[in-house]
Amino acid sequence: MSNSIELRPIGLVRSPVTTSADDIWGGVCSRIEIDETMFTPDCLLGLEQFSHVEIIFHFDQAAEDEICRGARHPRGREDWPQVGIFAQRGKNRPNRIGTTVCRLLGVGELSIEVGGLDAVDGTPVLDIKPYMREFAPRGEVHQPQWATELMAQYWNQE
Amino acid sequence: MSNSIELRPIGLVRSPVTTSADDIWGGVCSRIEIDETMFTPDCLLGLEQFSHVEIIFHFDQAAEDEICRGARHPRGREDWPQVGIFAQRGKNRPNRIGTTVCRLLGVGELSIEVGGLDAVDGTPVLDIKPYMREFAPRGEVHQPQWATELMAQYWNQE
Repeated sequence: MSNSIELRPIGLVRSPVTTSADDIWGGVCSRIEIDETMFTPDCLLGLEQFSHVEIIFHFDQAAEDEICRGARHPRGREDWPQVGIFAQRGKNRPNRIGTTVCRLLGVGELSIEVGGLDAVDGTPVLDIKPYMREFAPRGEVHQPQWATELMAQYWNQE
Repeated sequence: MSNSIELRPIGLVRSPVTTSADDIWGGVCSRIEIDETMFTPDCLLGLEQFSHVEIIFHFDQAAEDEICRGARHPRGREDWPQVGIFAQRGKNRPNRIGTTVCRLLGVGELSIEVGGLDAVDGTPVLDIKPYMREFAPRGEVHQPQWATELMAQYWNQE
């Protein structure tokens, strides 16, 4: 259907969380170190005026042979319905991309500090975008009960 | 710093918008056609229970030699400050990834219909994620004035 796309990480996550985890992300403070061979500090100019950033990253620790292309129970929980991989946000997904809106805690020379990034130490970062209010969902949001249950503890602190 | 990452589009955008545009996206209804050589319909199972989806796509029409790695005035507007590429959301960015939360209008066999996707016809899609309320920004959101001005007309209808 279409050709492959080659990306290059713009930086790496430095996090106190070193192994895959479910429900501990709320209190995590991470640093994103930007590749100094590719960028100069002006790539972050003005970012400090935003309260939040969207981090796009690569779940590189998800094994290729565990990637789901069909449906499964989220987290293997059989009391939740079987849903398609594009109806859940788990890491074992085609292209293994994660996106999370984080609180921006600080901007350094070629690094940023963020709160609540659900990516383990060493995760390659593909992009950083400022969060703008206008990119919030337009119209009323609803979601199934299983998603609300799954997320209930997600931002808990360890 | 880190190795390159090879991705494969999961599908393509079919949109009435065929050339790059700024402020017309609010009324656009698009279809995402999922690659039937890679996926079966169960990859979308249960997605219809969500009101919104997050689409991750590749700005493949942004020319490599126009990619900004430092700072620039958003949209070339000199009345707005010069800001780093990671402090703006424009398409001429490293890795050329776009992410937008869209209204989910319908789910087909191997396609979905979405409202308000700011990607032109033919754009490769890298991922579809359900939007969950818990992935909204945690804490108060603020942003600089230029961003609010830039976004003021963005979701207008043509």
